[in-house]
Amino acid sequence: MYSQLKEKVYRANMLLPHHGLVKFTWGNVSQADRAKGVMAIKPSGVAYEDLTAEDIVVIDLKNGQTVEGGLKPSSDTATHLELYRHFKTIGGIVHTHSRWATIFAQTGKPIPALGTTHADYFYGSIPLTRPLTKAEIEKDYEKNTGLVIAESFKDIGYEALPSALVYGHAPFCWGKDGDTAVHHAVVLEELAFMAWHCLALDKNLPPMQKELLDKHYLRKHGKDAYYGQE
Amino acid sequence: MYSQLKEKVYRANMLLPHHGLVKFTWGNVSQADRAKGVMAIKPSGVAYEDLTAEDIVVIDLKNGQTVEGGLKPSSDTATHLELYRHFKTIGGIVHTHSRWATIFAQTGKPIPALGTTHADYFYGSIPLTRPLTKAEIEKDYEKNTGLVIAESFKDIGYEALPSALVYGHAPFCWGKDGDTAVHHAVVLEELAFMAWHCLALDKNLPPMQKELLDKHYLRKHGKDAYYGQE
Amino acid sequence: MYSQLKEKVYRANMLLPHHGLVKFTWGNVSQADRAKGVMAIKPSGVAYEDLTAEDIVVIDLKNGQTVEGGLKPSSDTATHLELYRHFKTIGGIVHTHSRWATIFAQTGKPIPALGTTHADYFYGSIPLTRPLTKAEIEKDYEKNTGLVIAESFKDIGYEALPSALVYGHAPFCWGKDGDTAVHHAVVLEELAFMAWHCLALDKNLPPMQKELLDKHYLRKHGKDAYYGQE
Amino acid sequence: MYSQLKEKVYRANMLLPHHGLVKFTWGNVSQADRAKGVMAIKPSGVAYEDLTAEDIVVIDLKNGQTVEGGLKPSSDTATHLELYRHFKTIGGIVHTHSRWATIFAQTGKPIPALGTTHADYFYGSIPLTRPLTKAEIEKDYEKNTGLVIAESFKDIGYEALPSALVYGHAPFCWGKDGDTAVHHAVVLEELAFMAWHCLALDKNLPPMQKELLDKHYLRKHGKDAYYGQE
Repeated sequence: MYSQLKEKVYRANMLLPHHGLVKFTWGNVSQADRAKGVMAIKPSGVAYEDLTAEDIVVIDLKNGQTVEGGLKPSSDTATHLELYRHFKTIGGIVHTHSRWATIFAQTGKPIPALGTTHADYFYGSIPLTRPLTKAEIEKDYEKNTGLVIAESFKDIGYEALPSALVYGHAPFCWGKDGDTAVHHAVVLEELAFMAWHCLALDKNLPPMQKELLDKHYLRKHGKDAYYGQE
Repeated sequence: MYSQLKEKVYRANMLLPHHGLVKFTWGNVSQADRAKGVMAIKPSGVAYEDLTAEDIVVIDLKNGQTVEGGLKPSSDTATHLELYRHFKTIGGIVHTHSRWATIFAQTGKPIPALGTTHADYFYGSIPLTRPLTKAEIEKDYEKNTGLVIAESFKDIGYEALPSALVYGHAPFCWGKDGDTAVHHAVVLEELAFMAWHCLALDKNLPPMQKELLDKHYLRKHGKDAYYGQE
Repeated sequence: MYSQLKEKVYRANMLLPHHGLVKFTWGNVSQADRAKGVMAIKPSGVAYEDLTAEDIVVIDLKNGQTVEGGLKPSSDTATHLELYRHFKTIGGIVHTHSRWATIFAQTGKPIPALGTTHADYFYGSIPLTRPLTKAEIEKDYEKNTGLVIAESFKDIGYEALPSALVYGHAPFCWGKDGDTAVHHAVVLEELAFMAWHCLALDKNLPPMQKELLDKHYLRKHGKDAYYGQE
Repeated sequence: MYSQLKEKVYRANMLLPHHGLVKFTWGNVSQADRAKGVMAIKPSGVAYEDLTAEDIVVIDLKNGQTVEGGLKPSSDTATHLELYRHFKTIGGIVHTHSRWATIFAQTGKPIPALGTTHADYFYGSIPLTRPLTKAEIEKDYEKNTGLVIAESFKDIGYEALPSALVYGHAPFCWGKDGDTAVHHAVVLEELAFMAWHCLALDKNLPPMQKELLDKHYLRKHGKDAYYGQE
């Protein structure tokens, strides 16, 4: 019944090893079908070289129950569900332990906007969540991971900043579908790489000029965008 | 009418992914035909794997209008045009967000000449532009990017230093044609990589000996060059 | 007689160049057959591209004598034997000079647990051995290398921390068989890479939250594990 | 007449791009035939993808004249000749601008022996030459480069330390033939990579234990070596 969605999610997952964002099984992509009230996600612990579209698990967005698929869904499923619930307009989510974004998550530092490459995709610093409390870790850990990400976006827009670093853990990225979420994950990794090397040379480097951030973000996004073909 | 020029520019653009200088669509190469008063450039936002020679856009060097091609030219077209207008002897330009050169641009540091690899191609430190003003960013941003690069070469020769870093942004390189500009972009990336790691070990490292810079630059360039075959 | 064991050890050794963990002949994998009282190991100094399953050497775990094979076993054989003798439940061992783990060994620093990627596999900081004494180096060096690793695990469990860094030298990893030992070596290299970059940005970075270490280690290992398929 | 020597030198040169030690034409390998009083070397500025065995140039070791070959020899030929004259037992030399060794040469630091990987091949710190004087750079630069390397080995043995860093420039390596020289260049790059990262974490890291250096160097070299097959 969900074969098209599962095929798309399968292909989006396979982009992770293609772009060098994962080792072994350390990542997962989901995509939602809002009209049908479901999301499809990678099964837990299945190697990418063995993965097939048929293995993808379809989950009810409301109650979190499996509606199609014989395997256990990703152990991060509850995080994905919370993000879909809080970020109403997104259609895809990706989680990886990609090296450079994870280094920032582990060091407990947001990724500052330091240049136009960042500004082309992310309208400001990539947020870092607060640490989860002992209670939040011990019970409903994966759900609480989603909640603490949503909490980080209380005062900022999740559409213009489609990524967050979970403290001591790793990044989550999102977008209108699974492919876009993966695209953001690739860009995030590149930005994290460059930001790390800027900060290593100059710990006190200030963020980029606000007007340059505006210019680059807005020439690619929104009603006055002029980058790319119509 | 411009099929040969477009083919050359297509091939020069395809060298960017070949040399690992670009992610997605983050780069563009142009080449001028000075006799005909035009330049040809990559279209905006087209993926390298989809690009064909037919997609290349030909632009009038004087008025900036498209003279051949059905797609929108690169959003950086106005920067290329200003560079061709100021640097009278160049025939090719490349812009990328290559990692290491961009790190220097973001950190706001020129790339000092620290060894003979640098001296073989660039006769001194790679200049960094001043930051653009708010007004320069908000109106005619891409044209002003070209002007601020040209301004950096007021007192130094653009032929012996075929590259600049735009503050908070990324590098531009040039040469006698598109292929040579890309060659310089590859070398620049290698130099930036090595300079970063030298400066990270020793922040106060002085530039290389002036006489060694002279020796290496001049054994490859100018009338007394003796490197390579005749 | 041991053709199946030799085939397995051959394949596990070939994973080392596949995962980019070795240059030239700088590594070796062994696997034990506890029931038969033997281990099989790579021969000394044989290039991976020339290695065959037939070249693998089978050694008696008790007396260290060759029981099958015409080549000299790895010069690190005595280290492997000591580890099998002290770590009663392990079935495979790998030694490499992989870059990032070796950097920690050379710098004389354990690899702290800084994030969930680490916690998914290793239940705490990766131990560093004490330096061997002059006497231990000069006589029975390889055997003493095994003993000093075992000494590092006097007060900690070798099953939940299947790796050690030998001071001034390089890592050893282990597991239930050769493949698992190699899997741990790949993960260790990734952790070392990330930890290096965290510590380079912040020398005083504390270890990760204890409750997060518990959560991630225990959701993948032990009786309450819920990661992966049943 | 020298077709076998030229074929060997051609193959040794092709190992440089294979091992990722060169960009474009930035490297060259030579090999001597002491009995015939000649060496064969890469021609100057020829791209590796265009190079053939026929292009290799044969040079008289005494007078430096070409005895076979229609192309100009490498611009570094005079350096190779001086090294063959001073280091009587070597049979091959390689020069590259490989990234990590060049970083040390540019930073003006020798590469200290920090671990067993280093000790397996190089019996102590990799020497750095003094800077050449203005006069030495301006006249007979390439010959003086060879002389300053030889000067660095006045008090240390060139056989047990088959490599040097030329100040502000890049490494030269040598060995019993061209292949061995390239092997040393690959190892040097790996050591430089690891040493850089050790020193970046701890600027005051002392060299490795002397007894460990002895053990590892001597278990692979000299009359009591026991590594590898007989």
